[in-house]
Amino acid sequence: MDNCKVEVCLTPAIYDSFRNDEAIVVVVDVLRATSAICTAFMNGAKRIIPVATLEEAKDYKDRGYMVAAERDGIVRDFADFGNSPYNFTPERVRDQEIVYSTTNGTNTIMMAAHSHEVLIGAYLNHGALVDHIRKEKHDLLILCAGWKNKFNLEDTLFAGALAESVLEDENFYTVCDSTYAAIDLWSVAKDDMSSYVEKVAQRHRLRKNGLDDVLEYCHTFDLTKKIPYLEGSYLLTDS
Amino acid sequence: MDNCKVEVCLTPAIYDSFRNDEAIVVVVDVLRATSAICTAFMNGAKRIIPVATLEEAKDYKDRGYMVAAERDGIVRDFADFGNSPYNFTPERVRDQEIVYSTTNGTNTIMMAAHSHEVLIGAYLNHGALVDHIRKEKHDLLILCAGWKNKFNLEDTLFAGALAESVLEDENFYTVCDSTYAAIDLWSVAKDDMSSYVEKVAQRHRLRKNGLDDVLEYCHTFDLTKKIPYLEGSYLLTDS
Repeated sequence: MDNCKVEVCLTPAIYDSFRNDEAIVVVVDVLRATSAICTAFMNGAKRIIPVATLEEAKDYKDRGYMVAAERDGIVRDFADFGNSPYNFTPERVRDQEIVYSTTNGTNTIMMAAHSHEVLIGAYLNHGALVDHIRKEKHDLLILCAGWKNKFNLEDTLFAGALAESVLEDENFYTVCDSTYAAIDLWSVAKDDMSSYVEKVAQRHRLRKNGLDDVLEYCHTFDLTKKIPYLEGSYLLTDS
Repeated sequence: MDNCKVEVCLTPAIYDSFRNDEAIVVVVDVLRATSAICTAFMNGAKRIIPVATLEEAKDYKDRGYMVAAERDGIVRDFADFGNSPYNFTPERVRDQEIVYSTTNGTNTIMMAAHSHEVLIGAYLNHGALVDHIRKEKHDLLILCAGWKNKFNLEDTLFAGALAESVLEDENFYTVCDSTYAAIDLWSVAKDDMSSYVEKVAQRHRLRKNGLDDVLEYCHTFDLTKKIPYLEGSYLLTDS
């Protein structure tokens, strides 16, 4: 009882203060990487290879892989499509192995590789995550990808939503200020997410590039039960 | 109009992403360093020398300085008194030069030395800070000392209180997610701070060491108009 601790790491820049080999780490990059990855598996992708640099992505493309890659909203000419969740349609991704180029996301996923489990989290698989975490009964660390090492609101809100649900189980507790903050921010935002998200900096970055069509989609609960997890350098889900 | 930006840096670990030579930086360590420093000047201290290590503090003591130094709540035997604001009484500090040993605080203060101004902020001098910042019309960066590079709630709440007041002036604006978060957390907490602060981790650390008698005091608005500022290696106020 009450023996699994819940923590939220608000930016990868302070991850070292939270390292915990025994923890399940949920990596969160709601706009848009982890939402896109959940969508890909929901639509039947077999395996995702997250890569940090465009050079790596291009190298995979040259070797015949399907590649999703863009920077600042512009699809790279060597890539098959960009990073929006909407690009990962069943027609494109079913049974495919996909290379996904993300700057913040990949490093954030790999830095937690030492942990008990590294899972990919988004609103899209929130309920499945909660069930899994409660069943596994390990410490939980929610790791927000943030924006270039800064705090961001959209990942923090999701961290609050996830922490709040997990903490309803009596096996879990928290004494972590970031977790309290995330839950309280979630409480402020949850009844009117679309208004709240208006002030999020990333929302403005996406709008500027005409990529903000995914906002509502990325804040939709429970479209899939798939939980992508890290195994070696790959993301997989159980079938 | 609307040309001075307001930002909040939630932990010194990500300070590099916020560096701004033109900014007024307000360093915040509500429990207890910046509250103690404001109290010392309120009670007539002439100058404070913040030092990072106990070795430096002891060296100053050997040279005849008055020294405030403790670790984990225990006053060091060479020191004149500990770090609680309550120790900085008028009888002790009037016209004195005091060496103050603080681990997180000193490094946080010194890392911002390149800025336009480095000010010491607490609830105790909130109103004076707001007036000064509005008058100076520079960018504002509120730098939370946090706890060993982690986010903490008590500094974030004060950052929210300060940002909210400054942003009422039309010369100031924000597009910073941490600033929005701090203001929203402040909104949640402000009507019943004493209950809210119950969940703050530092509150439990202080209670464990019998040092939580300062909580209400450190959350009291506007006891002084003094604004300590950094000049070289010293903290001073205008008389």
